[in-house]
Amino acid sequence: MSETGTAQHTYRVELGPRSYDIHIEPGCLGRLGEAMAGLFSSPSRCMVISNVTVAPLYMDSVRTSLELAGWQVSECILADGERYKTMESFGLIMDALMEAKLSRNEPVIALGGGVVGDMTGFAAACYRRGIPFIQVPTTVLAQVDSSVGGKTAINHPHGKNMIGAFYQPKLVWIDPTVLNTLELREIRAGIAEAVKYGLIRDAALFAWMRENMHAALNLDADVLGKMILSSCRHKAEVVMADETEQGQRALLNLGHTFGHAIESMTHYSTYLHGEAVAIGTLMAARLSEQLGHAPAGTEDAIRTCYRQVGLPVDVPAFSAQQWLDAMGHDKKNVGSRIRYILLHGIGNAFLAEDVSPDAICSLIDSYLAE
Amino acid sequence: MSETGTAQHTYRVELGPRSYDIHIEPGCLGRLGEAMAGLFSSPSRCMVISNVTVAPLYMDSVRTSLELAGWQVSECILADGERYKTMESFGLIMDALMEAKLSRNEPVIALGGGVVGDMTGFAAACYRRGIPFIQVPTTVLAQVDSSVGGKTAINHPHGKNMIGAFYQPKLVWIDPTVLNTLELREIRAGIAEAVKYGLIRDAALFAWMRENMHAALNLDADVLGKMILSSCRHKAEVVMADETEQGQRALLNLGHTFGHAIESMTHYSTYLHGEAVAIGTLMAARLSEQLGHAPAGTEDAIRTCYRQVGLPVDVPAFSAQQWLDAMGHDKKNVGSRIRYILLHGIGNAFLAEDVSPDAICSLIDSYLAE
Repeated sequence: MSETGTAQHTYRVELGPRSYDIHIEPGCLGRLGEAMAGLFSSPSRCMVISNVTVAPLYMDSVRTSLELAGWQVSECILADGERYKTMESFGLIMDALMEAKLSRNEPVIALGGGVVGDMTGFAAACYRRGIPFIQVPTTVLAQVDSSVGGKTAINHPHGKNMIGAFYQPKLVWIDPTVLNTLELREIRAGIAEAVKYGLIRDAALFAWMRENMHAALNLDADVLGKMILSSCRHKAEVVMADETEQGQRALLNLGHTFGHAIESMTHYSTYLHGEAVAIGTLMAARLSEQLGHAPAGTEDAIRTCYRQVGLPVDVPAFSAQQWLDAMGHDKKNVGSRIRYILLHGIGNAFLAEDVSPDAICSLIDSYLAE
Repeated sequence: MSETGTAQHTYRVELGPRSYDIHIEPGCLGRLGEAMAGLFSSPSRCMVISNVTVAPLYMDSVRTSLELAGWQVSECILADGERYKTMESFGLIMDALMEAKLSRNEPVIALGGGVVGDMTGFAAACYRRGIPFIQVPTTVLAQVDSSVGGKTAINHPHGKNMIGAFYQPKLVWIDPTVLNTLELREIRAGIAEAVKYGLIRDAALFAWMRENMHAALNLDADVLGKMILSSCRHKAEVVMADETEQGQRALLNLGHTFGHAIESMTHYSTYLHGEAVAIGTLMAARLSEQLGHAPAGTEDAIRTCYRQVGLPVDVPAFSAQQWLDAMGHDKKNVGSRIRYILLHGIGNAFLAEDVSPDAICSLIDSYLAE
């Protein structure tokens, strides 16, 4: 992808009747209306769902593009942050859709990061039992991960993403230039998700990310374009092989069992999702070493990379019991083992079903003793 | 189906990976545990969702059957009535599922009528992005209609079933003997739904229902069995041809555009769903006559049948504007025509996309003038 803004990539996610394109192109935000012409027989009503941070920056551009293409545009602007990914916000979107009287064939457009995308997708899945939706991701995390693959959800007070649906978008429309307005902390958290694909299934990508980290953090167009494309390809390949997470898609949850527990124990207010997952990935790496699955030094190599990204790397101090509770371990029920994604090494993740609560206690103790 | 309670019928709904059996057998409620053995590799946890009316009657029998088969049973008991088919009740089910820590492979069982089935199905569709669910319908309406086909939903304050999912059950387990504890009013409303299949696609069934109405109202086992089986077959045939209502499945909504408006305008507290749909069907029949689609006398023939069933046949007095608003007509938007299911005659329904608001006003005026 060149710095002139003309380089573009389109990647097709093949899922039979639910197939769709991921389009990556600097400056494409203002051409969303044109892109939608190929998806709908004629423009009618649509709703753009965004948040109070993103809407002032990009709503005008999106709205103008849509209106020029003949669409009648409604808006629904939500509060910003993971702690608003709730049943209440879901209810607000439903109220707005009812108010706008969108019919079954009229689309919603998610303009924002992972939270906006997840909530919009779930609302699209449920409103009138399903209407079309389009992802226009505006954060690194959403561009490299959450906008692709159709996992939609809201949080329950006792667990992240517990209420949701597998529901694919009709189009993912990625303009990397919108990342220029992101805070550096958001960029760091998003890059962590790109690093994740390297850890799970592509050691060469991990090495390339380490070499190009400085450029990525500075939003160099070439490096950013390659990072987004590689990430979307990895995500799409996994989703095409296992859309509803019966098997290998679970590998993408590397760091998420611990990461979700961190977010839950800190009430979604201390860490960004990508930060919590990064810390969770370090924990999964150490657990892999402790159980003899990964060579010594695996956790250290990842920690060195995360320090380079500028991510938090310290595990928050909670008791082993707090961790077990937050991750849903139920000691009374032997059948309730939690699934962990562990590593055989960099680039090689696997699903472990047989991790005992005792192993988790030892892991937590090793951090508490540091 | 004989009066000895030994007659049974199993009908397979073929939907590829989402195929399932409808099993109809007097007395089968107490054998649900056995039936589930064929669906799950081993019994673990499950949750039975019911309401305060049904649970005291049938929960013990279901729980005992499940526990004898090795299941660990949780319960979630909701308030009874269409006006509790809300986001709040949905939240209560989610809280109960989180509390019980059901995993992705552990089922919920809907024990109740259409409201319990619709809400349980939607909760099953959303909890952890989808867990298995089983329909054990306990009303005529649920046994002949709503338990089959995978339409799940809750109501929005401004519209019925506006928030939901297409999500098929793993099994529909029908015991007609549970209907013995129903109030006559519920039986009448359920029979109206069976009559509906006759009106839509089976004039012979309509004639047979009229001949056997007395026996049906008295819950004669033979007549009941034939009525439930015929209805489930019609429903399943339509669902197999059009699972997500892209076309002919919409015909099953005969009477529903008006019926939903009646329920909404009376705040879900005056009419049972089947009663509102019956009145809505009379309105659709008169509209069909007024627009020249159905022969004169069609509405009268249906009204005579409904009087035989003991259903309300008077259209509630609301202004034409109230009707149009309740049905979502938007006069400012020419594109927003509402779809109506009309009749060419008894046994022959069709979808009309071109009904004008003026035609609806004339229809309402004709009732107001009576």
